[in-house]
Amino acid sequence: MRFNLPVLVYQEKNCVHNHADEIAQMGKNALIVTGRNSSKKNGSLDDVINALKSKNIKYTVYDGVEENPSVETVMEAREIGVKAGCDFIIGIGGGSPMDAAKAIGVMIYHKNENKDFLYKSVSNSQSLPVIEVPTTCGTGSEVTTVAVLTVHNEKTKKSMSHRIFPRMALVDEKYIKNAPLKVICDTAIDALAHIVESCINNNATEYSKMFAKEGLEAWSKFKDVLLGNREATDEDFHNMMYASTLAGMCIAHAGTSLPHGLSYPITYELGIPHGKAVGYFLPGYINEATDEDKEFVLKAAGFESVEEFSKFYKKACGYEKFPQELLDKTGELILSNQRKLANCPYKVDAEVIKNIISF
Amino acid sequence: MRFNLPVLVYQEKNCVHNHADEIAQMGKNALIVTGRNSSKKNGSLDDVINALKSKNIKYTVYDGVEENPSVETVMEAREIGVKAGCDFIIGIGGGSPMDAAKAIGVMIYHKNENKDFLYKSVSNSQSLPVIEVPTTCGTGSEVTTVAVLTVHNEKTKKSMSHRIFPRMALVDEKYIKNAPLKVICDTAIDALAHIVESCINNNATEYSKMFAKEGLEAWSKFKDVLLGNREATDEDFHNMMYASTLAGMCIAHAGTSLPHGLSYPITYELGIPHGKAVGYFLPGYINEATDEDKEFVLKAAGFESVEEFSKFYKKACGYEKFPQELLDKTGELILSNQRKLANCPYKVDAEVIKNIISF
Repeated sequence: MRFNLPVLVYQEKNCVHNHADEIAQMGKNALIVTGRNSSKKNGSLDDVINALKSKNIKYTVYDGVEENPSVETVMEAREIGVKAGCDFIIGIGGGSPMDAAKAIGVMIYHKNENKDFLYKSVSNSQSLPVIEVPTTCGTGSEVTTVAVLTVHNEKTKKSMSHRIFPRMALVDEKYIKNAPLKVICDTAIDALAHIVESCINNNATEYSKMFAKEGLEAWSKFKDVLLGNREATDEDFHNMMYASTLAGMCIAHAGTSLPHGLSYPITYELGIPHGKAVGYFLPGYINEATDEDKEFVLKAAGFESVEEFSKFYKKACGYEKFPQELLDKTGELILSNQRKLANCPYKVDAEVIKNIISF
Repeated sequence: MRFNLPVLVYQEKNCVHNHADEIAQMGKNALIVTGRNSSKKNGSLDDVINALKSKNIKYTVYDGVEENPSVETVMEAREIGVKAGCDFIIGIGGGSPMDAAKAIGVMIYHKNENKDFLYKSVSNSQSLPVIEVPTTCGTGSEVTTVAVLTVHNEKTKKSMSHRIFPRMALVDEKYIKNAPLKVICDTAIDALAHIVESCINNNATEYSKMFAKEGLEAWSKFKDVLLGNREATDEDFHNMMYASTLAGMCIAHAGTSLPHGLSYPITYELGIPHGKAVGYFLPGYINEATDEDKEFVLKAAGFESVEEFSKFYKKACGYEKFPQELLDKTGELILSNQRKLANCPYKVDAEVIKNIISF
């Protein structure tokens, strides 16, 4: 079994400020990669800019990353970064900017390659150094090599083929304090899915399950906040970020499985938030697992049964039934792609997919 | 809080053979650093040599590492490595060769520096790449920056000032299968001390305690083997190595504390094995901790009380009372060195030291 997590992580209040020296060691000229709005509102962009200024590091801001960023966005940012002479990347935001940051780091490093290079398999991936500053509690992208991009001509999303770990992750729970509950729910369900899919997984190991157990226990402590039963405390915000990073550590070791695979066309076609789309398939995925796997994840997350978890999901994410035709299509699509079934520890056929989709 | 563990770890049977490609990526000319005997007997040296040969990697064997290796040994190996043109290091054995391997990697990289460089503080340590192959279940050196050397003119042991993580650790439980029970006991008690000292520690974090909990649970599963109550199974050997590596991950994050500090003069003066010397101070160290810390470590390790653990230690390691004069001296020595007290979460004065020493 493998343990591999070469990311220096700091989780603490004001960690961007506290570790400005270590940020400055990454290079002389930063490309900040972020979205249009949230990093301006939650203070993360200002914190990063102030840290860079305090160390006299040059920077350029690229704030054009959309939700579910496209290959085209990566190429646009690459052009800006190359022109500005950037030698390291700082991704700020949720999964979209953090994933894009890794892809942009690869494309600036390989500045003469075209966009097909993102999905070309190479034996030894290289990139500019990447720092990630998460501002949601779901993706775990700050500790994984995952960089999911929208590929329009295939009408889906998929991760680039290069495996680039960020060098450093700066995790400050204050950035989620003013996020809408809906965003917290969607992202926290994504984190839960990362943990659960890493456990019910052919690649699960003692190491990945250690991260999973710790993550599920942190997650279970704030789950009533997701239902709106009480206000979140500082400890909850801490646990939300902690569980999310741990969930990233889980998938860094074991990868995701069917719920993620099934969700991508749903998000692509309907624009459903990633966490909500993934969560839709989670109860059914758990229900098909062995009793041992089922008990491991439900118990640590604090649920009595799959049914209880299913109710929880519907309440937290605002249930809506996705169109049957689209569900059937995503089911057929995944069955036709053996690579997408490889991580699932139980046999997957049309009936199992039907059970998962209709749970 | 910080998470930092940039070591690629494989724990599995035949991992040296399985990962020959990744070994070969570290360089073209290896210096193998090991002791006189055990790596020849347990098959680890042959495995490494065969892996190197299969990839046409040149190598030189330095097998002169003694227990508690000295600075002089490091310098001797450096000379051999420089002459042979080695560009990476493979340490094989217990803590002594693995610690020495890191120091030798630093000194070959800085081939014009003299031995004082080992204890010189520099802002950015550099070294040849180091791979570690542990063949005991105690030190955890394969996942830490620790490199404890004997400094004869100070009559003690201390870790070099450079913080070098191995690039890769290849952990194969088959290498401990034929080790004498005495060696397994001494090293397993050292692993336990690493975990316990990292928990009862000012630097303990949720991350270090996650590793600790997992490590203590693995450790508790084989503790009756240490008492000779039953033969070790394959699962036990796996857990011994797993607990030891996890214990290394604990100290990589939190460091050790008083029992390690108190043990070094004992080992230096009496030649007592490291684990046995450290374990002597462990019950007293636990006994002085808060109820919460005490319960955390005892429960996860499967002990009802400190007294029960103390009896266990005496039986497993073969009790002998160390000379009172030497105990008093090591107590005085540690009290005079504030740096050695810094990790301890409770106030340490002469009375506390007396309680620990005489528990």
